[in-house]
Amino acid sequence: MVADFCDHPFAYKKMETYVILRDLAIVILAAKFMAIVAKKVKAPGVVGEIIAGLVLGPALLNLVKPSDFINQMAEIGVILIMFSAGLETNLKELKKSGLIALAVACVGVAVPLIGGTVLYMCIHGFAAPGTEEFLRALFIGSIMTATSVGITVETLREMGYLNGRVGQTILSAAIIDDVIGIIVLTFVLGLKDPQNNTLLVIGKTVLFLVLSLVGGYIIYRIMKLLDARYPHTRRIPIIGLGICFLMAYAAERYFGIADITGAYVAGIILCNIRDAKYIDRKVSVNSYMIFAPVFFVAIGLKTDFSKVDSGMIMFSLAFVMVALLTKVIGCGITARICRFKWIDCLKIGAGMMTRGEVALIITNKGLNLGIIDSSYFTAVILLIIISSISVPIILKLLYTKAPDPVMEVQ
Amino acid sequence: MVADFCDHPFAYKKMETYVILRDLAIVILAAKFMAIVAKKVKAPGVVGEIIAGLVLGPALLNLVKPSDFINQMAEIGVILIMFSAGLETNLKELKKSGLIALAVACVGVAVPLIGGTVLYMCIHGFAAPGTEEFLRALFIGSIMTATSVGITVETLREMGYLNGRVGQTILSAAIIDDVIGIIVLTFVLGLKDPQNNTLLVIGKTVLFLVLSLVGGYIIYRIMKLLDARYPHTRRIPIIGLGICFLMAYAAERYFGIADITGAYVAGIILCNIRDAKYIDRKVSVNSYMIFAPVFFVAIGLKTDFSKVDSGMIMFSLAFVMVALLTKVIGCGITARICRFKWIDCLKIGAGMMTRGEVALIITNKGLNLGIIDSSYFTAVILLIIISSISVPIILKLLYTKAPDPVMEVQ
Repeated sequence: MVADFCDHPFAYKKMETYVILRDLAIVILAAKFMAIVAKKVKAPGVVGEIIAGLVLGPALLNLVKPSDFINQMAEIGVILIMFSAGLETNLKELKKSGLIALAVACVGVAVPLIGGTVLYMCIHGFAAPGTEEFLRALFIGSIMTATSVGITVETLREMGYLNGRVGQTILSAAIIDDVIGIIVLTFVLGLKDPQNNTLLVIGKTVLFLVLSLVGGYIIYRIMKLLDARYPHTRRIPIIGLGICFLMAYAAERYFGIADITGAYVAGIILCNIRDAKYIDRKVSVNSYMIFAPVFFVAIGLKTDFSKVDSGMIMFSLAFVMVALLTKVIGCGITARICRFKWIDCLKIGAGMMTRGEVALIITNKGLNLGIIDSSYFTAVILLIIISSISVPIILKLLYTKAPDPVMEVQ
Repeated sequence: MVADFCDHPFAYKKMETYVILRDLAIVILAAKFMAIVAKKVKAPGVVGEIIAGLVLGPALLNLVKPSDFINQMAEIGVILIMFSAGLETNLKELKKSGLIALAVACVGVAVPLIGGTVLYMCIHGFAAPGTEEFLRALFIGSIMTATSVGITVETLREMGYLNGRVGQTILSAAIIDDVIGIIVLTFVLGLKDPQNNTLLVIGKTVLFLVLSLVGGYIIYRIMKLLDARYPHTRRIPIIGLGICFLMAYAAERYFGIADITGAYVAGIILCNIRDAKYIDRKVSVNSYMIFAPVFFVAIGLKTDFSKVDSGMIMFSLAFVMVALLTKVIGCGITARICRFKWIDCLKIGAGMMTRGEVALIITNKGLNLGIIDSSYFTAVILLIIISSISVPIILKLLYTKAPDPVMEVQ
């Protein structure tokens, strides 16, 4: 036993070691380079990193192949991204802006969800609820739901309108939007499992949310105590990260809920302890130095053009159109109902159009579960590029047309 | 092609994902907890982390098994540790204290190397140079060479004697000692490869050192420029890390030199750019949050008691004795020859006795290459514990007996 315990795995590993160091070096260097290039042309950095993956991967140079190791590192990467997103949630902000933002978010999720589902059916024909095909349609819809407000926030901050009523509504709506998006995703993925009936899925989801509310509160109290005793010590971020990994694992293992949901919830649980920002900083270093680039590059590695035909391109364009319009309409109309001026409704609608990481993360999840194939990355990447480039321009136009009186939020 | 490309690896990965998140969580939480406990009882934190591995691993609880993933993460961990060590090298310090430190270091490496080799032969009988057995003996010797001066430095700093002549000599000697230790290791490992004759090994080693001198200087100039243009930007640590991974890979792949040597050299190359400390900080966060704990826990996971018998225990005790005495004698005598007072020779000898990470790293390397088996970890861990606990006590005694006139280093 000792013999083959000692020799085999390490001999194997020693071989592996080369490959992983080589791949890691190529991946992080190429990702950083392309991210810089992307930012130079005003595109989001992640787009650059994905393109780096396309170039390095089987699609083109074939310098790096998707391996178990790359996939595992990528998985940790997406877990860290979602944990960080949770940590940055501002619960107070949410409570404050309250109902209006909630309404905007809900409709802003519902309309794209329906829009995407319908779009898919328009192309592939009607599918009865419960069928594989219906699930696929629903999934295309859920990809469209999650707003990634980062670029909007940057734009509004630059123009100094972030603290305006419109800005605050967008900000809070985007946060709630994420939460709802995650719940929708959780629900849709739950349907995937054959022996899951809808009721069971709802049951599991509710149970998970209840347990994370109760357990979460206990964890929160304990971490608050630890943080008070040992502020700014390494143990705080390390324990936080441990909790994140455990919740991600538990979510998928015991509730059939996406591990990214678990990580996101872990982040929300810890977002109110005093050292939340400190944890976030440490996690971010791990994320941007190694893991996150691997995640986005891995998406590029997986994207294969072999399935991208004229039909796919047409679909991608339709996908982008629907994704953008449904957000504007959904959020805009709701804002109007909440008595915003038409122009402000447009601002809110446009501000909510941007998509980013989360859309990719959801797509990636669907790919891993075999719900959709990798060719859909094309549509999502196109959506991210177009929205991230157009939204800032649109917002600038709307605000120069009708600047709104900056109101200080107390 | 697309089909099995999409389904198989990700299906596989999805399964894996659970395991890695679970294992990671358990490993980092247990490691941190045990490290804290270890420090409470004045033992070095790494000892705690190793014990965490022993407890979690097949030896006891069997909660975590050594997997390819764990081994890969551990490998990255040791690479980061050695890169960081390189980055923290103070070349100016080295030049300043110069010859005396060099002499102390050389003899301080030679005597333990011989001592360890002889010890092994005393037990297992004489082995002719060139034989497998001789290599094993030589390897036991090289495990004894590397001083890990961290604890000594801490002790001297506390007592305020770090800037004294003795303190400076110890500090510089320890750094040179590392470099020589690495060269010895590189050479010994080179011998491992059957079709390597001694000459070829020396050739390869020299070629590597020459190339890293030339190539290193070029890299250094380029990074200096980049650093001047983009100080304190993420790209600096990321590029640095990329270089580290590439050099580690190249060293082992093309020169048959340990990848850890490559990482260490990469660190030394970058240790003089303005942002060296900045790179080191970022790398350290990655190291202490995830990778380093995995490395030390993995050692515990691999340590199996099944081979530890009374003979092994006797050997471990002899091993510790020889390792400590050879350092004291080697460094002490040399210091005496350099006209230090006897008591100061003792201080220097005692200060150089401490062993740590590097000894483990070398042992681990030998294990991976099948030179020695995992049971030797017992001896090394014992050496680390005993030296790290005894040295501070001995130094305090010596300095209270004969405090030395603090001399300011210009």
